Amino acid sequence: MGGWAIAVHGGAGVDPNLPLQRQEEAKRLLTRCLNLGISALRSNLPAIDVVELVVRELESDPLFNSGRGSALTEKGTVEMEASIMDGTKRRCGAVSGVTTVKNPVSLARLVMEKSPHSYLAFSGAEDFARQQGVEMVENDYFITEENVGMLKLAKEANSILFDYRIPLPGTCAAGAAATNTPIRMNGLPISVYAPETVGCTVVDRQGRCAAATSTGGLMNKKIGRIGDSPLIGSGTYAGKLCGVSCTGEGEAIIRATLARDVAAVMEYKGLGLQAAVDFVIKERLDDGKAGLIAVSSKGEVACGFNANGMFRGCATEDGFMEVGIW
Amino acid sequence: MGGWAIAVHGGAGVDPNLPLQRQEEAKRLLTRCLNLGISALRSNLPAIDVVELVVRELESDPLFNSGRGSALTEKGTVEMEASIMDGTKRRCGAVSGVTTVKNPVSLARLVMEKSPHSYLAFSGAEDFARQQGVEMVENDYFITEENVGMLKLAKEANSILFDYRIPLPGTCAAGAAATNTPIRMNGLPISVYAPETVGCTVVDRQGRCAAATSTGGLMNKKIGRIGDSPLIGSGTYAGKLCGVSCTGEGEAIIRATLARDVAAVMEYKGLGLQAAVDFVIKERLDDGKAGLIAVSSKGEVACGFNANGMFRGCATEDGFMEVGIW
Repeated sequence: MGGWAIAVHGGAGVDPNLPLQRQEEAKRLLTRCLNLGISALRSNLPAIDVVELVVRELESDPLFNSGRGSALTEKGTVEMEASIMDGTKRRCGAVSGVTTVKNPVSLARLVMEKSPHSYLAFSGAEDFARQQGVEMVENDYFITEENVGMLKLAKEANSILFDYRIPLPGTCAAGAAATNTPIRMNGLPISVYAPETVGCTVVDRQGRCAAATSTGGLMNKKIGRIGDSPLIGSGTYAGKLCGVSCTGEGEAIIRATLARDVAAVMEYKGLGLQAAVDFVIKERLDDGKAGLIAVSSKGEVACGFNANGMFRGCATEDGFMEVGIW
Repeated sequence: MGGWAIAVHGGAGVDPNLPLQRQEEAKRLLTRCLNLGISALRSNLPAIDVVELVVRELESDPLFNSGRGSALTEKGTVEMEASIMDGTKRRCGAVSGVTTVKNPVSLARLVMEKSPHSYLAFSGAEDFARQQGVEMVENDYFITEENVGMLKLAKEANSILFDYRIPLPGTCAAGAAATNTPIRMNGLPISVYAPETVGCTVVDRQGRCAAATSTGGLMNKKIGRIGDSPLIGSGTYAGKLCGVSCTGEGEAIIRATLARDVAAVMEYKGLGLQAAVDFVIKERLDDGKAGLIAVSSKGEVACGFNANGMFRGCATEDGFMEVGIW
C-alpha cells in the first residue's frame, strides 16, 4: 500500500486567454475541494465516500459545469448527468436527464446502492430521487445569469467555433470564428462546447479505488443528449488497480471507452498508471480533445490531456500537492 | 482477409424447460435472419449495413425482446434502446427511452450519422426521430398480448425468481420460486428478468467489423431504466479487430464493460477471438449471467455465455453455419 491519493478535475479544454482572475477562482475551488478530500482521507473515510463528497462540493459551487452552474440545453433548461463507481466490487450507479436533484452524484450513488439497476434516466431518475428523499430544488436553482447570457451568444453564434465563456475579440475562439471554421464533434459541426465537467478519483489507505464524474453537458445541447460522464467505462471507471474520471468531447471519449481503457492497459498490458494514461491519450483519442485524472491502488496519481488545458488538482499522502490548468 | 462472417443472438438465459415448439420458432427466426445477412454479405453490403438490416428484422418479429414484442415497463408501456458501432472508424450511435420508433437500431444509426452526438434519449430521441422522418408507430404496436399477460404474472410474483415466459410448475424458475430465492441483480432482488435482447455482429469481405444490439429491457422494469444494450463498450463494441454484441444481466455487463473487454483483451493481451471471448466470460463476469457473440476481422466467429443457454446463430464464408440454444 502506498497511502491515499486524490485527484480532481474541473474540465478539459480551456481558452488560452482565460482571464487570470478566472484562473485564480478555479484554482481556489480546486484547492478547497482537494483539501476537503484530504481531510476525509485522513479521517479514514472510504474512497467511495470521498469521491461523492468532493463531487458534491463541485456540483454545489456554480463555477464549473455541473449541478449549480450547469450548461443549458437548447431550451434554456438544465439536464444533468453523473456516475460513480466503487473499484473494490466494481459496483456502479449512473443518472442522466436529472433536472431537480441538487446533487446528481449522490443520486447516482443511491442508484448503485438502493436500486436493482445501474442506470436511471429522465423521469425515472426523478421518480427514484423522490422515493429516496434526496434534496430536490427547482430547475431555476441550477441556472446562472452567466450561463443564460452564454446560451444567447451560443444561439447567435450557431455553428461557429466559440468558447462559450470568453467570446472576446482576439481570443483563439474569435480567431477561429473569423475564419468561419466550425467546431466539429462526431464529424459534424456543433455550435458551442462547454467542457467543464467535474470529477474526482480517490484511492484510500486500504488501496480501494473509486471515481465519480458529474456534468451539465454541452451548452446549447439537444434535449436528451447523453454524453460520456454517466457512462461506466467511458467517463468513469474504477477497478482493483485504478480509478479514472474523464472530461472533454464526450463523443470522442465514448468511442475510445477512455476510462476503462486506462484500467485495461494496466490489467492486460501490464503498464503502470502514468504510462497507461499516456498510452490511452495518444493511442485511443484518435480525434477529439479530452483529458482524464487517475489514481492507482498503489497510491499514485496521474493525469493526461490533449486539449490546451485541464482544470485539475492532485495530492498524495506523502505530501505532494499540485493544482494546475495548463 | 478470411472472408465474411456473421453472428446473431436472441438473448442469453433460457428456461431449461422451454417447450420444443418455442425452441423451433426461435431457431427458424435466427436462421431466417442469418440467411438475410448472408445474402447481403454475398451482395457486398458493408458490415454496418448488414448489422442494421438483420437487427431490423429481429425488431420487426415479435418473438424476441426488441421492437415489436419488447418487454413491458412497470407501467405496461414499452421503452426500447439500441446501439450500433462501425469498427472501421469507431463511429457509434445509441438511443434509449424510445417509445414510438418502429426500428430503434435505425434511429441509433441516424444518431451516429446525422447528429452531432452519439447518444440521444427519451423525448430528445423521439424529437430527433421525427426530424429524420423515420417510421413512427403508436406504442401499442410494440405490445403483444403475451407480454401483457407476462407483466401481470410478473407483478403478482413480485420479487420472486421467475422466468417471464414460462411460469409453469416444475420448471427451474418455479423450483427456485418455491424455495423463495429471489433473483438478484446488482446485489438486490428484482422481480422478473426478460433477457431476450437481440444483436448482430458482422465482418465483411473487406475485414470491416460492425455490431448492433437492440432491446426492450427488463420485464416490469422501472420507467427510465437504462441497461447495457445502448452503452458502447458494455452491450456493443466494434473496432479494427472485432465486433461484439452482449446480452443478459445488463448490470453485470456494464460493470464488466464486457463488449469492449473482448476487444481490449485481443488488442492488449494479444489473444485470438475465441480465447478473448472465453477469457472475458470467465474473468470479467464476476457475478451475473450473460453471453455474447463476436466476429473478428479475420472472418472468425465466436460466442460464449455463462447462462444456461443463448439463442444464437453464426455463419462464415467458407460454408460453416450453426443455429443453437443450449
